[in-house]
Amino acid sequence: MTRENKLPPEERPRAIVEPVSELTTNRLSVYLRCLNALETSGVRTISSQALAEQFHLNAAQIRKDLAYFGEFGVRGIGYYVTELRRHLRQILGLDRGVRVAIMGAGNLGLALADYGGFRDDGFEIVALFDTTKDKIGRRSRGGVVIYDIREFRKIVKREAVQVAVIAVPAASAQHVVNIVVGAGVKAILNFSPGALKVPRGVKLKSLDLTVSLESLSFFLAQGESGE
Amino acid sequence: MTRENKLPPEERPRAIVEPVSELTTNRLSVYLRCLNALETSGVRTISSQALAEQFHLNAAQIRKDLAYFGEFGVRGIGYYVTELRRHLRQILGLDRGVRVAIMGAGNLGLALADYGGFRDDGFEIVALFDTTKDKIGRRSRGGVVIYDIREFRKIVKREAVQVAVIAVPAASAQHVVNIVVGAGVKAILNFSPGALKVPRGVKLKSLDLTVSLESLSFFLAQGESGE
Repeated sequence: MTRENKLPPEERPRAIVEPVSELTTNRLSVYLRCLNALETSGVRTISSQALAEQFHLNAAQIRKDLAYFGEFGVRGIGYYVTELRRHLRQILGLDRGVRVAIMGAGNLGLALADYGGFRDDGFEIVALFDTTKDKIGRRSRGGVVIYDIREFRKIVKREAVQVAVIAVPAASAQHVVNIVVGAGVKAILNFSPGALKVPRGVKLKSLDLTVSLESLSFFLAQGESGE
Repeated sequence: MTRENKLPPEERPRAIVEPVSELTTNRLSVYLRCLNALETSGVRTISSQALAEQFHLNAAQIRKDLAYFGEFGVRGIGYYVTELRRHLRQILGLDRGVRVAIMGAGNLGLALADYGGFRDDGFEIVALFDTTKDKIGRRSRGGVVIYDIREFRKIVKREAVQVAVIAVPAASAQHVVNIVVGAGVKAILNFSPGALKVPRGVKLKSLDLTVSLESLSFFLAQGESGE
């Protein structure tokens, strides 16, 4: 508490009165990635300034974002890398591991199931689901079992699934989302194009690959017309 | 021109004075997806209201977004589906096809190379690049050739590559981006975690899968602490 009062106002913790924006949590994820790298390199402490310079970030923004969640910086020292990393993992809910199911065992679903980056970060892919008879009962190269989607509710309970990833064709996406929501899963990451509906209390995050490519295509088209 | 003056002010085309936001182009992509579906179903005309209702969108926003690029709606009729679809594809630069290279022939790179949704939309994946000897010269299941990254500059010219997708491990991402930019590619879609630097005039769009999952994890963690 005394530490906190020595800090300038923008670095003091604020009461959490407003919901934290997705932009903020995205930045926390980026900070965590930086701290992972620093810890691997054996760095023990780092100032917000050095953190910003090394990873092309904004030092004032770092201080503000972190101050929102508590008092992590120490005057004259900066942040203790291991301690801050542990705090960030806790804030992001990664400390206890997050259990993920992937809906759709096509190319994308299988790639996501075996993507090593998730596991390193505290996400465990515990199951794949599909409707194709030939796929059911098989495993991804990394060993994730492909279950019949009709067993979803049962497996969700058994495996304590918290997040579902939608990697099915657009035409069946809403149907699959309804199954996911019906089984009580509260967080969904969607790779399928198009708008999907979820009830209040369920968080849906969409990453539309085609939309992203189209925004680049638009940029290129504008560049040409502007020349 | 006369048509335009019969419309309420918010539906009249504006001069393009400000750069179009990414949110707007993202919405245009969504409208295009809806029009694709309508055309497939044989629908010939649709009002902004019906479009909004059918796809859970905002009718006023649709009219505003489209009016920005010209006069597409007709009073009492709405939009001609085929015509508007063609216009949107033109605005998004999809009408002439966009040629894409994928950097990294791992799980994710191979999944993206064979993802049918891109081709349907006007994107052609013309090459994969990797550094692993065993992979070079082989093809993805869909037939995309994996080239040695040292040949990048040559292949980019030959295949007229416009967009590069970064699907390599984080540790080599900036190095690969430098190669891409050095060969004159102006648009990059990045799947690798962490901040990447590109010079002015190059558009970089990042889709960080881990960051997206972490924002869901954060949502779940907050929900638990709030209960």
